[in-house]
Amino acid sequence: MFVYHHKVHYYETDRMGITHHSNYIRFMEEARVAFLDEIGASFARIEADGIVSPVMAVEGRYLHTTTFDDVIDVEVFIKEMSPLKLRIGYRMRVGETEVFEGMSLHCFLGKDGRPVRILERYPQFAPYVPAEE
Amino acid sequence: MFVYHHKVHYYETDRMGITHHSNYIRFMEEARVAFLDEIGASFARIEADGIVSPVMAVEGRYLHTTTFDDVIDVEVFIKEMSPLKLRIGYRMRVGETEVFEGMSLHCFLGKDGRPVRILERYPQFAPYVPAEE
Amino acid sequence: MFVYHHKVHYYETDRMGITHHSNYIRFMEEARVAFLDEIGASFARIEADGIVSPVMAVEGRYLHTTTFDDVIDVEVFIKEMSPLKLRIGYRMRVGETEVFEGMSLHCFLGKDGRPVRILERYPQFAPYVPAEE
Amino acid sequence: MFVYHHKVHYYETDRMGITHHSNYIRFMEEARVAFLDEIGASFARIEADGIVSPVMAVEGRYLHTTTFDDVIDVEVFIKEMSPLKLRIGYRMRVGETEVFEGMSLHCFLGKDGRPVRILERYPQFAPYVPAEE
Repeated sequence: MFVYHHKVHYYETDRMGITHHSNYIRFMEEARVAFLDEIGASFARIEADGIVSPVMAVEGRYLHTTTFDDVIDVEVFIKEMSPLKLRIGYRMRVGETEVFEGMSLHCFLGKDGRPVRILERYPQFAPYVPAEE
Repeated sequence: MFVYHHKVHYYETDRMGITHHSNYIRFMEEARVAFLDEIGASFARIEADGIVSPVMAVEGRYLHTTTFDDVIDVEVFIKEMSPLKLRIGYRMRVGETEVFEGMSLHCFLGKDGRPVRILERYPQFAPYVPAEE
Repeated sequence: MFVYHHKVHYYETDRMGITHHSNYIRFMEEARVAFLDEIGASFARIEADGIVSPVMAVEGRYLHTTTFDDVIDVEVFIKEMSPLKLRIGYRMRVGETEVFEGMSLHCFLGKDGRPVRILERYPQFAPYVPAEE
Repeated sequence: MFVYHHKVHYYETDRMGITHHSNYIRFMEEARVAFLDEIGASFARIEADGIVSPVMAVEGRYLHTTTFDDVIDVEVFIKEMSPLKLRIGYRMRVGETEVFEGMSLHCFLGKDGRPVRILERYPQFAPYVPAEE
């Protein structure tokens, strides 16, 4: 399981004294970028291929607050892969405490604006696709 | 229907040339704050009452991109109100184009950290709660 | 004197309970964008002309804290205009209290990457340039 | 010389394709936090001592653009220390290219809101104070 680490910055907290909830969506992006680097399908490479990969949806559940200086461990994994859509899952922990779980949904669009068949174009995703779908 | 307006700032765009997806979670908060002001249950008042109202979950679907200088009209409404939870809905448009829809889920916690019965404490929500629940 | 208004968002505060200092640099940009719209040399127009106008320097002095829900009045003015550089000044107040003063320094670069003589290209700045330079 | 590393996130870029200028003020804070950790006068400790340390001023000069995935090396150093004020300097590079230089000015306030003599309270700064002041 790929794990990304984010240490919460002071500017990411709010006046409730906790990490502002919007920032977890950014931590998801940071972790996704690192995961895609790891598997050889980096943003830089996808962009260089002339493909854009917009975010179609996000979801998050806040399970426990975090704050400045906490190190959040972010597990990233493929939740579901259909021919045209990629659903990525995230589980965040500080130590043993679960703090957040979320998902993001993505498609890949070619230069002509039409959806790309993801696994055909980027077979490096294959080993990470869960078996039963 | 309450509508809040957000003009997209340059610093809210990313290098795809569009409004970064994480910012819509912030637009939801801006709109929610304005809506709560409108109905007489403002953040300032809730905080002054010693109540904290953390975000328990968010969801968003991105329907169309937006960018710098676009004026986003954000409709805010109560989707669902149970004794202890408040689900707020958001529909965002630029002109006639739907660009985003989302929801946020909230509870209210008293000084003792225990959940507060929302409608008993803040009856000003009542007229905005949808009929069939 | 042109004045722009910014109401501080919850997500702009930090765990000291105040507006995070980095956000004032963003308020400067918001106010600058509105000022350039006002005088007829908008970002949109400058970009459409194929000109980029990077920020070369910023400075800010924090005079008083602000927080959530404060309305900051931002005065924007041209501090200095040389053939190739534009220095914009900002004074921010909440009510009668001065909270921040700052400046930003800009140049304008044409498609060839070479500096553009600002007043020749955008004479609409002229009425706003202070007399004694 | 203490060096902090920041890898630019996608959400830190803007539609010019570069790191938005406001983010460098945040990178300064990240680097300052790491530097204070290093010398044994961490934010966490200062806060636990009941001392607040607001930012009084910032300055930055943008020397070269950066973008997504760039690793910025941030040198942090004490520029000047007077009894009541601390001026911290920053030099940022990507590889051999200088991209930014900046400073931030700080004071330390005790529980009574009065300025604290910094070196008396935190002698761990002493080895980092430049000789000629």
